[in-house]
Amino acid sequence: MGVVVPFDGTHNPEATLTPLMKLVETDMTKVNQIILDKARSDVDMIPELAHHLISSGGKRLRPMLTLAASQMCGYTGSGYVMLAASVEFMHTATLLHDDVVDESDLRRGRKTARMLWGNEASVLVGDYLLGQAFKMMVEVESIEALRILSNAAAIIAEGEVMQLLAAHNTATTEDEYLAVINAKTAALFSAATEIGAVISRRSKAEQSALLSYGKNLGLTFQLVDDALDYCGEETTLGKTIGDDFRDGKITLPVVLSYRRGSDAERKFWKRTLEHGEISNSDLDRALKLMSKHQALEDTIGRAKHYGSIARDALAIFPEGRHKSALLDVVSFCINRLF
Amino acid sequence: MGVVVPFDGTHNPEATLTPLMKLVETDMTKVNQIILDKARSDVDMIPELAHHLISSGGKRLRPMLTLAASQMCGYTGSGYVMLAASVEFMHTATLLHDDVVDESDLRRGRKTARMLWGNEASVLVGDYLLGQAFKMMVEVESIEALRILSNAAAIIAEGEVMQLLAAHNTATTEDEYLAVINAKTAALFSAATEIGAVISRRSKAEQSALLSYGKNLGLTFQLVDDALDYCGEETTLGKTIGDDFRDGKITLPVVLSYRRGSDAERKFWKRTLEHGEISNSDLDRALKLMSKHQALEDTIGRAKHYGSIARDALAIFPEGRHKSALLDVVSFCINRLF
Repeated sequence: MGVVVPFDGTHNPEATLTPLMKLVETDMTKVNQIILDKARSDVDMIPELAHHLISSGGKRLRPMLTLAASQMCGYTGSGYVMLAASVEFMHTATLLHDDVVDESDLRRGRKTARMLWGNEASVLVGDYLLGQAFKMMVEVESIEALRILSNAAAIIAEGEVMQLLAAHNTATTEDEYLAVINAKTAALFSAATEIGAVISRRSKAEQSALLSYGKNLGLTFQLVDDALDYCGEETTLGKTIGDDFRDGKITLPVVLSYRRGSDAERKFWKRTLEHGEISNSDLDRALKLMSKHQALEDTIGRAKHYGSIARDALAIFPEGRHKSALLDVVSFCINRLF
Repeated sequence: MGVVVPFDGTHNPEATLTPLMKLVETDMTKVNQIILDKARSDVDMIPELAHHLISSGGKRLRPMLTLAASQMCGYTGSGYVMLAASVEFMHTATLLHDDVVDESDLRRGRKTARMLWGNEASVLVGDYLLGQAFKMMVEVESIEALRILSNAAAIIAEGEVMQLLAAHNTATTEDEYLAVINAKTAALFSAATEIGAVISRRSKAEQSALLSYGKNLGLTFQLVDDALDYCGEETTLGKTIGDDFRDGKITLPVVLSYRRGSDAERKFWKRTLEHGEISNSDLDRALKLMSKHQALEDTIGRAKHYGSIARDALAIFPEGRHKSALLDVVSFCINRLF
């Protein structure tokens, strides 16, 4: 799409996720079983809708992170499987409500639940899954894990409201944008990894390290996602190039292009993203402006910056398969671009 | 409105709520302060929208029940104030999502949040309040209370989905209707009262008694609400007679009228409630059919039936101001009709 992105040496991004997947394979089977069990209900629509989400081919990165972090911390109980499942349910509930708020038609190349079952059902089944997530957490009986995850739930919702308020606002600063993705994306990643140290009763330093790793990994993940919307391959993306642009979403590539642009260029961004007046050639122009201002390169640069912080956060843990797999996840997030 | 309802002797329904309000007055000041505190957020729209809800003149019956039940059980800690506030937040979050799902314009005579701030904000601020509710519960550090309240959250959402599926279905049976209100209304009432015994570490029998009291009180409350929609006074109701009818809601007065009606009458109910074809004179006809089949009297009869179970559930507690005030709440629910 006319954008040159630096090349990082790895051709198969999924390969960098393989060590993590191998480590947690046995436990993920249990997590998946719990997810299916807890999506049950005598109310027909709930399992139907839940299975649509569950079978949608997501990577389940967040629960895998909880499992790997717990294993690395030497956790010996069985509760982490339940916590991992509850993290995925929180994520799924957020996606359901997100799609309603964003009026999304497609997710990962498939019709969204709201298109198939309606907005009302998506709101209510999201609430149900969130309720189930809390029930699962409570079963583990770790007040500390509950504190972290319930706090994340409030912060995620706060982040979604921030995003709603900043919607279509081209004057959003990079800091404001960062505050949004810290809340809506990084908060769940950091909770997912921090609880691994918490339920294993590891030191404050190790808890903080895993919190920091998860938070910065989440930022990396989200920023790469934002860049991919303008330069990804449509087949692997499961969505169409320029979806964010057509939806008027303000992501970092736009923030940078707008702030670095001329008055005429800012008028273009205002017309297209604030007023939603988008013609056929506008996506091409947007891509050209991003290229001119190195907006995608710099978005990826920011992603690498946070990825680097995530890596360093893990420094205090001894070398081993778990640490190595978690470091590879940072590479995976960045390699999705290539 | 042409409906004769039996008279119970009390002219001022609020009077039967006074003993409860007096008992919990000091603690409710704390609950209200917590509610205001926890509705804070740096994201402007959240406190605005939350204050709209908080100032809407609800009675806060549910948190008062938690306080009174805890006091009756001799609770000596401070956690119950936080739990009472979290019960109210769960309720408020449900109202926000309900209004979105029902496309309601008015609640208690005022514009709904979704009319003022939009559906998107109502969904997300509901999520935020639910997250805050869980954070508060966790602070109290009672795994048992957490179990009860998180279970209630899932059941309430399940009940809302059931209601959505049963919407406009005139063939709903009384049992099916009861299952819906058990989940969407009675589950939070029963959780609100049960946790009073649980955090006071009272016997299983006393926990069950307060669960049963709350559940049956919730059913009474909801059934009276359903009847009020067809025979209440508009000034005290804060809504208009026939709102449920115009919204095509299937409540017990409709269920009874439909099942007891002739083929022609069933056609009327199908046309109006299933197909939404309602002309000016239809509400009058609905009221006449309800009168003919004693649908409102019998709805009130059912409400009294559950109210009676609620009263008997409290029998094992010693006489005193708390028990007396809780018994009065049953009378209050029924006296709202007169």
